[in-house]
Amino acid sequence: MIILGIDPGFSVTGYSIVKKVSISTLGFKNKNQIILLDHGFLKMSSMQSLDLKIGIFHNFFTEKIKLHGVTAISLETPFFGKNAQTFLKLGYLRGILYLLSHQHKLTIYEFSPRLVKQNVTGYGAASKEQVANVLSMLFPQIPKPLKEDVTDAIAISLCGLWQSES
Amino acid sequence: MIILGIDPGFSVTGYSIVKKVSISTLGFKNKNQIILLDHGFLKMSSMQSLDLKIGIFHNFFTEKIKLHGVTAISLETPFFGKNAQTFLKLGYLRGILYLLSHQHKLTIYEFSPRLVKQNVTGYGAASKEQVANVLSMLFPQIPKPLKEDVTDAIAISLCGLWQSES
Repeated sequence: MIILGIDPGFSVTGYSIVKKVSISTLGFKNKNQIILLDHGFLKMSSMQSLDLKIGIFHNFFTEKIKLHGVTAISLETPFFGKNAQTFLKLGYLRGILYLLSHQHKLTIYEFSPRLVKQNVTGYGAASKEQVANVLSMLFPQIPKPLKEDVTDAIAISLCGLWQSES
Repeated sequence: MIILGIDPGFSVTGYSIVKKVSISTLGFKNKNQIILLDHGFLKMSSMQSLDLKIGIFHNFFTEKIKLHGVTAISLETPFFGKNAQTFLKLGYLRGILYLLSHQHKLTIYEFSPRLVKQNVTGYGAASKEQVANVLSMLFPQIPKPLKEDVTDAIAISLCGLWQSES
């Protein structure tokens, strides 16, 4: 299972790709380890038209899916904020991810923000910092500080990975 | 200009494809006429998964765009109703239409429901029946009664056609 976690947005989209590998050492029990294959963000400009941004978003994640052989997409269920049109537009990007899931035969996992925090830290009302601290322990090699969108995406991708095992 | 008007929905999506042609008759002034190239609806089942429905929607309109050489998509700006998740999901389908517009280099036109009624009947608060009556006069050959989603799509496609001329 290779999971692509995404925190989509028209300004910044955080993403993370994780994979579980089984490391066997002679005389020892097999040890599972989570590998962070890729992580980062896609930034789009407010100067770009909506259809161009959607095209860029589609192409960017099509490439990531092919490059890493992604098998599932993991998303966070968005909250409805104050602005209905912003919420509608968030749907545009999510629609593209559902299309990619159809086109590449990927499973889609969705988690509430509370469940993401619960799964990562053991506590559903954990702060952003608490989530970031757990991720730093799991992946000490990644440079800090990470963009919040990327931290979120890593947490979401882990939820997808754990869900795929159960 | 060949305009695809769409009234998207996960249950029923009405669509209409219109084109303006100039008919020249010997000794007479050229006469413009609007041709309804195609109209109908795409029905999806509540038994189908979200990603399958989005894949079907994408493929259906990709085919229509190629078949008729569509040059622009015309949409109605949706109102936010009571259910935030329904509104978000409507965004999924609109996102696919924006992607198609990017992929096939189509212009996208958007009109408020009020403007659609205003353009078609001359009156922004016109009833569904008044809109349907005008469409029947413009296209007497289409069988009646039409599904409401299809009537809406025809009205939306006409707005796109008129807008493209100005």
